[in-house]
Amino acid sequence: MGRPLWNNAVSNRDEQRRQKRLAVLGTGARLFNVRGFDRTTLDDIASELNVSKRTLYYYVSNKEEILFECSRLALEFMQDTLIRCRDPDIPALERIALLLHGYAQLLADDMGACLVLSKDIPLSEPNSDVLREGRRSLDGLLRNLIRAGVEDGSIAPNDVRLTAAAMFGAFNWIPHWNRSDNPVSHDVIAENYIALLIDGLRRR
Amino acid sequence: MGRPLWNNAVSNRDEQRRQKRLAVLGTGARLFNVRGFDRTTLDDIASELNVSKRTLYYYVSNKEEILFECSRLALEFMQDTLIRCRDPDIPALERIALLLHGYAQLLADDMGACLVLSKDIPLSEPNSDVLREGRRSLDGLLRNLIRAGVEDGSIAPNDVRLTAAAMFGAFNWIPHWNRSDNPVSHDVIAENYIALLIDGLRRR
Repeated sequence: MGRPLWNNAVSNRDEQRRQKRLAVLGTGARLFNVRGFDRTTLDDIASELNVSKRTLYYYVSNKEEILFECSRLALEFMQDTLIRCRDPDIPALERIALLLHGYAQLLADDMGACLVLSKDIPLSEPNSDVLREGRRSLDGLLRNLIRAGVEDGSIAPNDVRLTAAAMFGAFNWIPHWNRSDNPVSHDVIAENYIALLIDGLRRR
Repeated sequence: MGRPLWNNAVSNRDEQRRQKRLAVLGTGARLFNVRGFDRTTLDDIASELNVSKRTLYYYVSNKEEILFECSRLALEFMQDTLIRCRDPDIPALERIALLLHGYAQLLADDMGACLVLSKDIPLSEPNSDVLREGRRSLDGLLRNLIRAGVEDGSIAPNDVRLTAAAMFGAFNWIPHWNRSDNPVSHDVIAENYIALLIDGLRRR
């Protein structure tokens, strides 16, 4: 009879640790986004969380781990969207809108913004490989959807690589300007950007 | 009779100093773009130019001055384009294309890329004010051109602020990805991006 309690205790402890680690990652992401990765120290993160740096080391081993985990989690958040975007029963233009909408939502999150704002911080392998692969997979999906739209006649022929770069670029720039205490909602941004870009793609 | 010679000598010395200072700025911009501003030292720049740090101090007083001057010059490069874009005899959509083409050209230059890649490095006042003003003036011009297009009926009604942000965002992202030894030419990028964005703007 004691067993379930013990299991719960373990599970709670694991869950607590997981939550606290997430708090460390989230705070790290937020500070990196505001001050820049290079200008943020583990001391800054510890002080923001009101814990000692020693406590921080219980959850992460260094600053790079925070950046890597935030970026990896951000890419993971896109997984559900990516699965829906692969559904061939949805028209290509609609799937592009879905993808861009999910991406705008991701970038509104501190970890998602981190993926963009700290993109050029060099990470060690295999961390850098994991993130490169994640970014490539997103980019590859958008290119495939554009190609699918050209094939089904809904999208005008175009240089798929550059078109995807322009679309992601428009979105990637959001965390660079939408940073005030009262940011524009990602829904409003996505709606406007998608209207502009989808009309640009459409075959006349 | 000696006077013109003397004047020439002065002028040559001034011109030499100007050229050397430009070399310092250009090298700084290039290294900032590759390694990041925070990860580049004056020693790196001196060593790249094969001069001593002491020589460098003859042309600039610190790293911030290099970043500021590169960004300021980059904005200055846009002046001719800005003047043409204010010509009311050219249709709004065409002026938008002119502006974006000039901007793509700017970003292909090390100093222009610096304007984007080191945008978030905090500079002291009044330097930060000068750059903010320059960026605002670019942004304001694009918004005005979009408004002019809506008024003349060539552009579909839209949220001008967000549309301008999407367009600049697409271009601002170029220096983040177009960095290999064999970059895509800015003309090709501009042509493709403008096709996508102008078609997106157009009233159907």
